[in-house]
Amino acid sequence: MYTTEKDSMEKILARKMSETKDVSSVVEKIIQRVRTDGDQALFQLVEEIDQVKLDALAVSAAEKKAALEATSPELMAVFNQAKGNILAFHKKQVRQGFVATEDSGVVMGQRVIPLVCVGVYVPGGTAAYPSTVLMDVLPAKIAGVKKIVMITPTDNEGKVPDAILAAAEVAGVDEIYKVGGAHGVAALAYGTETIPKVDKIVGPGNIYVATAKRMVYGEVDIDMIAGPSDVLIVADHTGNPRWIAADLLAQAEHDKLAQAILVTTEEKLIEAVETELEKQLVNLPRKEIAAASLENNGKIILVKDLNEAIEVANQIAPEHLELSVAEPFALLGKVENAGSVFLGHHTPEVLGDYFAGPNHTLPTEGTARFYSPLSVDDFIKKSSYLYYPEEALRAVGSAVELFAKTEELDGHARSMSFRMVDDSVK
Amino acid sequence: MYTTEKDSMEKILARKMSETKDVSSVVEKIIQRVRTDGDQALFQLVEEIDQVKLDALAVSAAEKKAALEATSPELMAVFNQAKGNILAFHKKQVRQGFVATEDSGVVMGQRVIPLVCVGVYVPGGTAAYPSTVLMDVLPAKIAGVKKIVMITPTDNEGKVPDAILAAAEVAGVDEIYKVGGAHGVAALAYGTETIPKVDKIVGPGNIYVATAKRMVYGEVDIDMIAGPSDVLIVADHTGNPRWIAADLLAQAEHDKLAQAILVTTEEKLIEAVETELEKQLVNLPRKEIAAASLENNGKIILVKDLNEAIEVANQIAPEHLELSVAEPFALLGKVENAGSVFLGHHTPEVLGDYFAGPNHTLPTEGTARFYSPLSVDDFIKKSSYLYYPEEALRAVGSAVELFAKTEELDGHARSMSFRMVDDSVK
Repeated sequence: MYTTEKDSMEKILARKMSETKDVSSVVEKIIQRVRTDGDQALFQLVEEIDQVKLDALAVSAAEKKAALEATSPELMAVFNQAKGNILAFHKKQVRQGFVATEDSGVVMGQRVIPLVCVGVYVPGGTAAYPSTVLMDVLPAKIAGVKKIVMITPTDNEGKVPDAILAAAEVAGVDEIYKVGGAHGVAALAYGTETIPKVDKIVGPGNIYVATAKRMVYGEVDIDMIAGPSDVLIVADHTGNPRWIAADLLAQAEHDKLAQAILVTTEEKLIEAVETELEKQLVNLPRKEIAAASLENNGKIILVKDLNEAIEVANQIAPEHLELSVAEPFALLGKVENAGSVFLGHHTPEVLGDYFAGPNHTLPTEGTARFYSPLSVDDFIKKSSYLYYPEEALRAVGSAVELFAKTEELDGHARSMSFRMVDDSVK
Repeated sequence: MYTTEKDSMEKILARKMSETKDVSSVVEKIIQRVRTDGDQALFQLVEEIDQVKLDALAVSAAEKKAALEATSPELMAVFNQAKGNILAFHKKQVRQGFVATEDSGVVMGQRVIPLVCVGVYVPGGTAAYPSTVLMDVLPAKIAGVKKIVMITPTDNEGKVPDAILAAAEVAGVDEIYKVGGAHGVAALAYGTETIPKVDKIVGPGNIYVATAKRMVYGEVDIDMIAGPSDVLIVADHTGNPRWIAADLLAQAEHDKLAQAILVTTEEKLIEAVETELEKQLVNLPRKEIAAASLENNGKIILVKDLNEAIEVANQIAPEHLELSVAEPFALLGKVENAGSVFLGHHTPEVLGDYFAGPNHTLPTEGTARFYSPLSVDDFIKKSSYLYYPEEALRAVGSAVELFAKTEELDGHARSMSFRMVDDSVK
């Protein structure tokens, strides 16, 4: 199922969730309907698209209570343990504003201000992903966001999975609405009678959600345009084929479009991993999805040494990079493009997906070239400020005037010159 | 030209550079042509759209040399002075990665890595804006970006203004190409034979540039979708009508779509400012533009006290906020939404446009609710990392398995469980 040659880098690099014209025009119409008809459009769209007839958009207090009661104490404990780890890691991302003062009396600086209201998209579909709730909500809490609104599609009975509601409670979500897809994104971007307009929308979703996020970008902020998930594992002679195969499959089981790549210096390892993949696939519950992913996008690349392996990784810019090598820290500094790096044999990506602390919302499809993991930074904005005393203004007035005149903006020049001749502050 | 009632907040808040279907479809075709035909498409599009026949896309060394020779020593000195101020301010934005270690041996953290290649868009048109060059390039230099590529449209003779080339030299731009508009953005996003594909595109532009940036967002990163510039001036009884009028006009002269707003507690000041506006408009070189801007978007709002003034400002979320009041620092903490704040009577926005240090690339059209001024942060990406020793993995294995099973991802659970039973690292 894998090719073992370093043949098709271009194919790998060209990966892109294709956003067809059809999707765009469907999403455009959905957004327009929500903007025009608000809640009414949402009820209709949920019925048309999700085939669910909702009584109310908001998850009720009774539903939340029932979900908490239905969640095992063991699972609640795990959620809380994960919450502790995620909070501890993300608190290190908190940054302060700064100030610079000069002898002339000039004061300038930058303030850091939390966003007021944020929308978190939690996908529904084949399974429930409470980890997404924790990973997307907790950094916003740390940032100081006042209101966190979650939206998520329901099952056929109009119910949100218990684990999602329980995780939302653990994370501290303020409001939850039963709407997903492009219509959910539109509701967050423009607001309806029931759902508040937010400052930013975060969270993963399918092609309709991603397209809607692109379309509303600028009206509100978004975290990123997320595509299918991917992993790249770099392995040397110490690589354990059973573990490597398990990690490739953990990625592949997400989605037929997911991508799992092994880059190794060991020809022997390739055969062993392929054997393990066959073996482990047999009784994997999501084997159809995993097999399709490996078939479509899986790849094993043989390289001459670990430097070449890292070069390949940097070119591909994986979302997750596992360094299953004897000395993983020796490679870390050479990694230029990767959302999150997992060092050594006992650090599978899965640890980061759920539990360890770093965020699992990461740049996909090679966008680690320029995007970052979701962080506290995503939930703040900066604002700069400047103060000049009169003497300081006078000292630079003619320089600023010359600059303004170079740009042929005489009004700008006057804003300075008037203050140079006219020193009356009434 | 101004209304003096707090009547049309809705109109102000609804401001939006309208991106029509026509623009979108034109831009889409332009991007497609550049992707398909590369340089050849660029030469053709520059001829079709800009009516210029270029010999070469790149600005030559001879052209750069000539531009430097044509620039006065005074202007070069001002550029260098501004450069010093901008560098000093932006160096304070540089951030470090972090590491967290635990007694269990767990190591995790976040690295900060500069983008490799960045594209800077510098608008052409009626005047040259060397300040844009300094403001957009210097933060990238501080971040450690390896290659900075500038694109800018030329005049009718295929020449880039001397001041732009001189500022590019001062700022340390690596390559300059004579192409603007949507075609220039497309070239940076996808690369051509001559122009390299970049990781991120920054810089302001017209509706075609903004639309192209939105369309290529995700293929590369962008700074923001920028619209027309705006200022909001808050003034109390100490406000100087002459200076306030000059500052409103400095904003208005940018663009017919620019927006200049005065919010004041003083009825008397309104009349005085209106008189000054009439007077100053008479001999303002760009008076047609400024008058149209005031006519279309100008507004004076009377409020009962400064708290209400700041509430209005926070609702409008101006790009530039001038606090022309007796105690400006008393208001700073109440400002929630503003790109850049100018404190006191001797700190006109113009100081920040050119010279003082804070960036002049700021969120427009109310997007200060969620966007930030351009900063060193725009030119780095973050990458997280995680290391678990074997014992630490074993300690959390069952918790992670339970989480994975809750999400019905058995492959994820196995990635942990295999490591719990099989402790052989070959």
